[in-house]
Formats: sequence, C-alpha cells, structure tokens
Amino acid sequence: MTAVTLGARDMPVMRNFYRSLGWRENDSSDDAFTSFTLGGVRLALYPVGLLGAEAAPAEPVVAEGVWNGVTLALNVADRGEVDQVVRVATDAGARVVASPTERDWGGYSGYIADPEGNRWEIAWAPGFTDFD
Amino acid sequence: MTAVTLGARDMPVMRNFYRSLGWRENDSSDDAFTSFTLGGVRLALYPVGLLGAEAAPAEPVVAEGVWNGVTLALNVADRGEVDQVVRVATDAGARVVASPTERDWGGYSGYIADPEGNRWEIAWAPGFTDFD
Repeated sequence: MTAVTLGARDMPVMRNFYRSLGWRENDSSDDAFTSFTLGGVRLALYPVGLLGAEAAPAEPVVAEGVWNGVTLALNVADRGEVDQVVRVATDAGARVVASPTERDWGGYSGYIADPEGNRWEIAWAPGFTDFD
Repeated sequence: MTAVTLGARDMPVMRNFYRSLGWRENDSSDDAFTSFTLGGVRLALYPVGLLGAEAAPAEPVVAEGVWNGVTLALNVADRGEVDQVVRVATDAGARVVASPTERDWGGYSGYIADPEGNRWEIAWAPGFTDFD
C-alpha cells in the first residue's frame, strides 16, 4: 500500500491539523492537494468532491457525524509517547474518542478523531514501532 | 502509519477477497481478526461492530452503498500490471469503479471497490512502485 487518501471537506483546516502534528509535508503540497510521508506510506488529503468524482461517482459520500468505518494506526515507542501524541493532537484540534488505556493484546493505546472525524489509534505495542 | 483497519461487515467474505489477491496474510489471522503486510504498512480487517465500539462508540457507522470518503492506493511497476491487478481483483469479487486510464499527473490508474465498497486506486506512476 502506497497511500491513504482522505477526502477533505475543508482542506486548509485538515492540512493545518496534520502539519501541527509535526508531520513532514511533501513538496508541491498546497490546499488543492497535500501529502505527508509516514514511514513507508503517504497520507494524502484531497477535496472530497474531487476524490469522489474519481473513486465513487455513483454513490453519496458519508455524512458529517457518521463514522466512516475505518481506523488508521500510528505506533510509537512507549506508553509515554502515546500520551504525548494524544496531547499534541488534541492541542492541534483533535477530539479524544478513547483515552489511552492498557489493551487486552498487551499494549497501550487511545483513539482520536481528526477535525473531520477520521479515526487514529495511537498505540504502543511491545517491540513494534514505526517512524524509525 | 503502521496500519489501516477496515471495519468488515462479513469477515469471511472480506478475508477471502484479500487472500485471493495473493496478499500475504500474517500469522494468527482468522475470521475474528486478520491482517496483511503490504510493504511498510498492514491492512487489517476487524468486525465493524467491534472496531466501532473502540473507535467510534458514539456515532453511527456509514451505511452500505455510501462511500466512506477514503481511498487506498497500490502502486505497481507498469501499466500492464495495473490492468492485471484490476483483472485479478475483479475475478476475486471486486467491482471496477473506474477502468484504468491515463491520468493528468502522468501515470495510469483505475479504481476498484472491494466486496464492501472500500476503494483502491491501482496505479502506475513513473518511477514509483511499492511491494519491492
């Protein structure tokens, strides 16, 4: 998988949010299209109407306030970094959906929603990180 | 980004679809949870009700037939491989949303929908592949 593209309702808001996390924005990014390199994959933002015209011309798009059925995950180095990333994201405009907690699978994670409701699990799992 | 998890309505159907693409399923996968390693990121499948209980306990989930506003991308080595992957995916139960075509940005791509409507762009872009 090379990219995940989120259809954005408000490009400047979404772009500013992800920049505020300190993520590296790729060259030639602007409010018409932007992408961030996150380890081995890109997170791209593109206006939802344009993305839908390409990818789903015959269907309505998920309404605001309705969960899209997808989660993205970010693995960090330790429990403290989970808390820290959740705090930075919250300061940048994210909503905490589930505060970080110990998980049955042996790790520690929480869920946040970006300004348009896209879900991220911020996780520490023993022996597993990215952004290395 | 370490993982993208799709909330699945029918785990066996979704799991079989992605296995039929020839993707490498990780150990300990079953119909309760499965994941596939795709280059530097995992694609996970988890029942949508359980995923929503963790990630979106307060919202309804996108209805069937409504596009979730997200696309995933797979970059391949050349135009011929775009056509081939679209063919394999179609044989496995995907629906072609947009047949492969030359794109303004200099590449060649098409869009498919998996059995539950998740969108994939199968793309060739000059000088850019994954699964290497």
